[in-house]
Amino acid sequence: MSFNANNFRDVDPGERVLMGPGPSDVSVRVLQAMSAPCIGHLDPVFLSIMDETQRLLRFLFQTENALTIPVSGTGSAGMETCFVNLVEPGDEVVVCVNGVFGTRMCDIVNRLGAKLIKVDADWGKTIDPDTVREAIKGKSPKVLAVVHAETSTGVLQPLEDLSSIAKESGALFLVDMVTSLAGIEVSLDKMGIDAAYSGTQKCISCPPGLSPISFNAAAMESLKNRKSPVVSWYLDMSMVSSYWGADRKYHHTAPINMIYGLREALRIIAEEGLEDRFARHMLNHRALVSGIEGMGLSMLVPEGERLPMLNAVQIPEGADDLKVRKALLNDFGMEIGGGLGDLAGKVWRVGLMGHASRRRNVFLFLSALETILKAQGVNVQPGALEAASSVY
Amino acid sequence: MSFNANNFRDVDPGERVLMGPGPSDVSVRVLQAMSAPCIGHLDPVFLSIMDETQRLLRFLFQTENALTIPVSGTGSAGMETCFVNLVEPGDEVVVCVNGVFGTRMCDIVNRLGAKLIKVDADWGKTIDPDTVREAIKGKSPKVLAVVHAETSTGVLQPLEDLSSIAKESGALFLVDMVTSLAGIEVSLDKMGIDAAYSGTQKCISCPPGLSPISFNAAAMESLKNRKSPVVSWYLDMSMVSSYWGADRKYHHTAPINMIYGLREALRIIAEEGLEDRFARHMLNHRALVSGIEGMGLSMLVPEGERLPMLNAVQIPEGADDLKVRKALLNDFGMEIGGGLGDLAGKVWRVGLMGHASRRRNVFLFLSALETILKAQGVNVQPGALEAASSVY
Repeated sequence: MSFNANNFRDVDPGERVLMGPGPSDVSVRVLQAMSAPCIGHLDPVFLSIMDETQRLLRFLFQTENALTIPVSGTGSAGMETCFVNLVEPGDEVVVCVNGVFGTRMCDIVNRLGAKLIKVDADWGKTIDPDTVREAIKGKSPKVLAVVHAETSTGVLQPLEDLSSIAKESGALFLVDMVTSLAGIEVSLDKMGIDAAYSGTQKCISCPPGLSPISFNAAAMESLKNRKSPVVSWYLDMSMVSSYWGADRKYHHTAPINMIYGLREALRIIAEEGLEDRFARHMLNHRALVSGIEGMGLSMLVPEGERLPMLNAVQIPEGADDLKVRKALLNDFGMEIGGGLGDLAGKVWRVGLMGHASRRRNVFLFLSALETILKAQGVNVQPGALEAASSVY
Repeated sequence: MSFNANNFRDVDPGERVLMGPGPSDVSVRVLQAMSAPCIGHLDPVFLSIMDETQRLLRFLFQTENALTIPVSGTGSAGMETCFVNLVEPGDEVVVCVNGVFGTRMCDIVNRLGAKLIKVDADWGKTIDPDTVREAIKGKSPKVLAVVHAETSTGVLQPLEDLSSIAKESGALFLVDMVTSLAGIEVSLDKMGIDAAYSGTQKCISCPPGLSPISFNAAAMESLKNRKSPVVSWYLDMSMVSSYWGADRKYHHTAPINMIYGLREALRIIAEEGLEDRFARHMLNHRALVSGIEGMGLSMLVPEGERLPMLNAVQIPEGADDLKVRKALLNDFGMEIGGGLGDLAGKVWRVGLMGHASRRRNVFLFLSALETILKAQGVNVQPGALEAASSVY
């Protein structure tokens, strides 16, 4: 096979501003940590890095759960990990669906041969706890699953009522925290959450590749009492937990350098402090919304139900979705997300996640969007920047 | 929760010489590539990086297979990917077992509800094709699976006869190339291999975290004709291939920076050239074996069946396995592997993989081992270094 190695140049991804639905901007500290020399997955030095990573993750999840680790895959692997470990064929599983990621949960549940109890809400709306109560009447679900922060719509799901419903019905409460973790309060132990998963590339601001998960004692007990083996060898937490626990039993080779990066990203979070970090996300979100509304545009999600880190902006009449996003990318080096599913062509998804949740990004986005929309002949009100400024 | 971020210092893994069963030493070029800024998984710049990575992987696997991609998990995720996509409940699956990784294949096959046809050989020996022929008499296996390079024993499995047997019986020929890829010849198309997987942390010398896989047309056809859905959403190649193919349909967020690293590691391989790379692995292996035998120690695997990149050395009488490995790590910063399973305490596994397959590593290991064994009072013949030198 003829092949010319000289056709490949140094990797040069440029310098984007990542304000889409993730990945978010990554701190140079995290990138540098990832480039430290690789060592063995059973090296004592690496074992202590693993321990520190677990301690930092427990702090972030606000939990004492022993099994609090990064799964060796992206956020979707974390989703799959929770379902394959906690669900057996024939189990009843409640999944709340108001966007793409609830839909993905249903797909996974169906593949596992479980009985899906689907509870729907309109995309862009929260799940009404009463519809869940109604759906499980006379049933004994093994798991009740919901997405805390729907990245596809920008909706923040309140968890208190659903947590109570899960407890009352004897179900494990499983929460997708891919986009919420490290951006808003996520307190596993206080909120009565039995299992949760997240991703590294959203508010944690580490590159994608790992999925932090946490199982409490009830989830571990359920895993221990399974009648059938976990269908996935790679994601079987009864074995993976031995490697991350005191046994240190080899399972699969951990993604060493990704874990260096995650540890550094978690350390940055611990240095900032959770409350300050959540406040920063909220402040920049409020400024963005003020600017968007100052421009005469509208948010998709009603006030009070919005995520601070993922802002779904309705595309105004006359604007060309794709052209606007291309101009942002090509003229300003800025990535935002388009709508998914039913919302394709209807919204832009503007992320303000982790390291990217910064005043300068809010201003860059608002000024770039205003300029691009005007160039497309879209009627834009003046005053976006003033409105945003007034929030700070 | 009280938590002090100052308890965590900068990541500092030190500078190991990685001569275990993987990960292997990683070039600074690869580490630097991994620390390039993260960009979006649908960014046009990243899409072209994906294309280049696929072209480089096809070169390495010596194949024209369209589906030739890195799976977003470590080598074991690649193993699982092949089985979950190609096997359905009730299918007959032949697995050849002469070490840990064949055993792992059996575990996965059993979890999938397939009918396992296990063909054993002693650990440290190759699989005899006649035992496979015998085992499948009157059967119609869907898949015949074998490990090309058993990392647990150091055995190189010839593939020609097994490939023929698979073709004759109508089975897909699935090969574990975790340790062989980029160290010895691996020519998917020429060898009649239908599906293969590997890992990045062995002879590719990229940190762990990705699993290169390749499916040919027959494997893709088998996937397309499944009666039941692939049980894993995350590893379902009918969807993942859409993201890596022309459709670019979002499935899960790719591990961006890991892919930067893999692309650079593959580029280094292409610059060296496959034949030169294989010759280098063989030369350093021969020198190591000469040195080991010059010292009066023995190899586990008979000559002619040995892997060049993974050398199983029999632990001599009087040597304390754990103390020797600790002295190598603490006094010389050098990692080698212990034995697994039946071979625990009986062999050391000395890797000469990818970037770590170097004359200086051969000499460092031989001189360190000689020194440590003598200090333990083990009878060591003089002349190891002379014997190794004579090979170069």
